[in-house]
Amino acid sequence: MNAENTRCLVLWIEYEGTNFHGWQTQPGQRTVQSEIEDALTKMCGEPVRIIGSGRTDAGVHAWGQVAHFHTRSRIEPYKVRIGLNTMMGRDVSIFDCREAPGGFHAQFDAVRKTYRYRILNRRSPSAIRQPYTWHVRKRLDLEAMRKAADILEGEHDFASFCREKGRPEDTVRRLERLSVERASDEVVIEATAEGFLRHMVRNLAGVLVEVGRGEREADSVREVLAGRSRTLAGVNAPPQGLALVGVDYGEKLPPEAAPGPEETDA
Amino acid sequence: MNAENTRCLVLWIEYEGTNFHGWQTQPGQRTVQSEIEDALTKMCGEPVRIIGSGRTDAGVHAWGQVAHFHTRSRIEPYKVRIGLNTMMGRDVSIFDCREAPGGFHAQFDAVRKTYRYRILNRRSPSAIRQPYTWHVRKRLDLEAMRKAADILEGEHDFASFCREKGRPEDTVRRLERLSVERASDEVVIEATAEGFLRHMVRNLAGVLVEVGRGEREADSVREVLAGRSRTLAGVNAPPQGLALVGVDYGEKLPPEAAPGPEETDA
Repeated sequence: MNAENTRCLVLWIEYEGTNFHGWQTQPGQRTVQSEIEDALTKMCGEPVRIIGSGRTDAGVHAWGQVAHFHTRSRIEPYKVRIGLNTMMGRDVSIFDCREAPGGFHAQFDAVRKTYRYRILNRRSPSAIRQPYTWHVRKRLDLEAMRKAADILEGEHDFASFCREKGRPEDTVRRLERLSVERASDEVVIEATAEGFLRHMVRNLAGVLVEVGRGEREADSVREVLAGRSRTLAGVNAPPQGLALVGVDYGEKLPPEAAPGPEETDA
Repeated sequence: MNAENTRCLVLWIEYEGTNFHGWQTQPGQRTVQSEIEDALTKMCGEPVRIIGSGRTDAGVHAWGQVAHFHTRSRIEPYKVRIGLNTMMGRDVSIFDCREAPGGFHAQFDAVRKTYRYRILNRRSPSAIRQPYTWHVRKRLDLEAMRKAADILEGEHDFASFCREKGRPEDTVRRLERLSVERASDEVVIEATAEGFLRHMVRNLAGVLVEVGRGEREADSVREVLAGRSRTLAGVNAPPQGLALVGVDYGEKLPPEAAPGPEETDA
């Protein structure tokens, strides 16, 4: 595709991950990327490929995924947003679409990402929140979880928290923030970093829950980090508790338009 | 069934209404009542019928529906709760079960009920909240909606807000509270009354949204009330925005156990 004839557009995307096999296009599977690409291809009258800020696994949700694409079509951004929302399943929605600044890349320009992991921490399951939470019955010890989270914050080799298969050479990441809060009958973990390894947030959530249940000492996460082996970090928390909250591009891209109401119906 | 040999148990129930044809048992349909009755019948080894505080329509959710049933079985209440949660679909859950006080009746003893209606009031749809909200793009005028709500509060003949089919003789109800609040990008309506007519909350939400969009004057709801005709009140808001928040039985039944975590897994 000749770059001189194309425009680059950015999409802000929300999805309910339950009925998707994750973000990334895979043959024969319904994925968020292919759902959007199929609709864009029809709309633009040419094959369109989108590049997201990163993958999310099957069952993981997103409040604020970001992606960009190039197209020769002259379609206006607001028409892309409205058109996609009409053409796609209701479990994926576009809440903003804009012209990208020159040379923008949704993956490489990401400055930081924030993920949220929700744990329903009560006796009984919740019919309404079961698609969005991990149900842990035993009362979690927040003080111990926070102590472990404080150890995990900062720059470390997170090899023990990375999926073995396809593990990159460099597994050092800087975890800017790892918070644990109780909100009513939930325990909510938030993680912010420039980049995450595959399964990293779910593995962090898994080890924090083991600490919260008293199955391991908070201090033991030091040895988990030092051991650099996936076998040390315990369970991988289930995907439905996880959501990509947002992607920050710093000065490269102003935050998305506040998705407020319109003065007229459109 | 001989009352001397039976016990009466109360259930507190949460459900995600999307995949149910409402509360009430209907031949050939999946309903919340029949889902619970089928599981109880297996568990108790005898036909069990439950009586709820009232029906909810297809697609309507409940955070705190209440029902009672009689059984000759000696099964303990906490085992009923755990057993039902194991046997039923994940979109319905029991968060408490207890012995009922003598002569308790989930429908006739209800002192008041509270419903919540959620409107997503922003430009774009929400993939995650679409099963729980009515999407209204145009900015709603809260001041006008509150003015109309104040007129609707109190004791009135709500015939105009009741489904025509099967309308009762007496359509006078006392609406204790009808509130309209903005919460982030949502507008939330809450209604509390001893009893509601069929479709009443959805019809109230429909007329309030018409006022909020400027399609009718707040004062016009006086004529709607006076006209006593369903044709005057406008649209019936879609079911998925509605949830039964809770049922209050006053001194007859203490509130359900706070559904907190357990010290041990059970």
